Amino acid sequence: MNVRGFSAAAIAAGVRKQGRLDLGLIHSAVPAVTAGVFTTNLVKAAPLIIDMERLKQGMSRAILVNSGCANACTGEAGRLAALQTGAMAAQALNIPESMVQLASTGVIGEQLNVAAFAQAMPELAKALAPEGFPSVAQAMMTTDTRPKMVEKSVEIGGVAVNFLGLAKGAGMIMPNMATMLGFVVTDARIGFPELHRALIGGVERSFNRITVDGDTSTNDMVLVMANGLAENPWIDDKAAAHFALFQTTLQAVLRDLALMIVADGEGATKFITIRVSGAKEAEDAHRIARAVANSNLVKTAFFGEDANWGRIIAAIGRSGVRFNPEKVDIAFNDVTLVRDGQAVGGDAEERAGRVLREKEITVGITLQDGKADEEVYTCDLSLDYVKINADYRS
Amino acid sequence: MNVRGFSAAAIAAGVRKQGRLDLGLIHSAVPAVTAGVFTTNLVKAAPLIIDMERLKQGMSRAILVNSGCANACTGEAGRLAALQTGAMAAQALNIPESMVQLASTGVIGEQLNVAAFAQAMPELAKALAPEGFPSVAQAMMTTDTRPKMVEKSVEIGGVAVNFLGLAKGAGMIMPNMATMLGFVVTDARIGFPELHRALIGGVERSFNRITVDGDTSTNDMVLVMANGLAENPWIDDKAAAHFALFQTTLQAVLRDLALMIVADGEGATKFITIRVSGAKEAEDAHRIARAVANSNLVKTAFFGEDANWGRIIAAIGRSGVRFNPEKVDIAFNDVTLVRDGQAVGGDAEERAGRVLREKEITVGITLQDGKADEEVYTCDLSLDYVKINADYRS
Repeated sequence: MNVRGFSAAAIAAGVRKQGRLDLGLIHSAVPAVTAGVFTTNLVKAAPLIIDMERLKQGMSRAILVNSGCANACTGEAGRLAALQTGAMAAQALNIPESMVQLASTGVIGEQLNVAAFAQAMPELAKALAPEGFPSVAQAMMTTDTRPKMVEKSVEIGGVAVNFLGLAKGAGMIMPNMATMLGFVVTDARIGFPELHRALIGGVERSFNRITVDGDTSTNDMVLVMANGLAENPWIDDKAAAHFALFQTTLQAVLRDLALMIVADGEGATKFITIRVSGAKEAEDAHRIARAVANSNLVKTAFFGEDANWGRIIAAIGRSGVRFNPEKVDIAFNDVTLVRDGQAVGGDAEERAGRVLREKEITVGITLQDGKADEEVYTCDLSLDYVKINADYRS
Repeated sequence: MNVRGFSAAAIAAGVRKQGRLDLGLIHSAVPAVTAGVFTTNLVKAAPLIIDMERLKQGMSRAILVNSGCANACTGEAGRLAALQTGAMAAQALNIPESMVQLASTGVIGEQLNVAAFAQAMPELAKALAPEGFPSVAQAMMTTDTRPKMVEKSVEIGGVAVNFLGLAKGAGMIMPNMATMLGFVVTDARIGFPELHRALIGGVERSFNRITVDGDTSTNDMVLVMANGLAENPWIDDKAAAHFALFQTTLQAVLRDLALMIVADGEGATKFITIRVSGAKEAEDAHRIARAVANSNLVKTAFFGEDANWGRIIAAIGRSGVRFNPEKVDIAFNDVTLVRDGQAVGGDAEERAGRVLREKEITVGITLQDGKADEEVYTCDLSLDYVKINADYRS
């Protein structure tokens, strides 16, 4: 499946290490309506500051992405380096500089190897092809163990509209974005306000619902480019049904990418869904789910396959949400361990222990306090998480 | 050194496992003015709820403490069990039930083994002796690798006033208290309002400045008993100088205990001080220090002896505090790695790497934004942290 008008390529440019794909380029044959969301971290990498400025025009033609160097905390030199690499891409593609979006991921505080970009750019631009996306997914990887790519189609007004999404991220994952890059290209014809709204909503229900370790980074962004080549009926403020189809599909792409990130969480051995229901407000449910998902003690217990629900109820209790501890139920998949705040007893813990030996586990927390529910996705905290992060730069 | 009128004892009661000290008793020969602070977790263990009620009288005679069972999430049965054990201690000591404070630590969700208390109580009460405190410190331990006890004296109005403090805690440590118990006995003569005020201030500058893993628990408390037998001039609202001496010494006791807990952090290989200076407000400095101290990525980098300051600046950036990233300096002990938000370069990173091989490290973060400073104490996140917490109950 191709997304009309989009092509991509990647190359081993030697940004930091030799011999691995580390520089990718995505290109649209025509200007594409483009929306983005960026890290909430006060410390923002150089490319993000440039992108945020450029996206005020709501249009772009290309994304240039590298791994190996985050170009964060690099000051004026870093800003100039980012601008230079963007200018190289613009020249190679024969498009205005302002139409290039820049993304970097990797180690913070080192200057970008601009010479490597200069040398690789002509070959990279020449290699652009509709089937080049998987190699870009690979070039974006840092501690990821596998590339992350999703394709979907939806019929809007009798026309097939296509989506292709790429993401990278494994650690430093946390609500409000992380060392996480996500790019979606689509041939949908859509107005900027609608694209922006669909992206914000979609990120809220996908990337902002996953957490690996509670950290966020200086480089996170999600970009979506829509070039209109599907020639579907315009998705604008007069086309609510079309917008709903578009949004649902975009959200599904973002969600699939987000879940791939959790499943590839650094050192993860288990994929864990924290589902909180019966809360007074959705925000309460979300806060509780996040408190549980971010607890090191809960996550190490999952790694140890220990049905230690006491740590879960302690995490709920410190979430800051008011609730009645004597009305809390906790279940692992279909095994209820705690009812009304107390152990069910019998063989429940043994049966829960069996659930914990599975690879995908849903922790159900019921408050009996209202009708709101929310889910957050996370993984366990393993010995390998520590090994990976103690050794990352060596 | 004895604290006049106080005695203590511990016994292997078999609360959960046989053959280890797990039940301790502290006793004052006369009623002692008593103040306490308790977990902010909404889920509170049974003994805490009883203690908070009893402490309204501001007096107690004894503390009964067990490890092996937290008596949390145990409902009405747990409350009755706690009351029963308190009644046993009261009877053995021939004091009113309301004068007994109760403390439990250990696994959440299991019912208390009341029979073990009943059998041990006569012998325990009989064993009370001024030199019994070290064995109580031992009986309180769970994942602690060593008992924690501090003694101090101060002269107030020409009289030696003595303090003895005990604590337990290693994991689940975090500002606002944790699976942490702290007891201080003193023979000072002090009014309840002054004792309460000194305790609140002292805890704020000690236990609320340490963090191991960001989790808090259902059982945390700090109690201080002052029985007046030193017969020092009354410490009350007309004795500011005496109060200052008392508070300084109490705070030093609490702080020593808190630092012992961090040094004994689960799996800790390093003791880390995060010192933030040049902040606009003390609260800003404290928030930044906590964000850095609680970052898994920062803590694993310390374990790996990796001078990865990018993770530190990313943690500062997501703390929620507004500051200028281009005015941030970061140093490890006396080695400045980052100046004005950028790497110093040269051999700084190599020298910082040498600092990281030490056991005690101070991370200095300077914002150049004001005059407020704060410190938080933490440890690294090691492979052993994961091992200990994956296996805790097995």
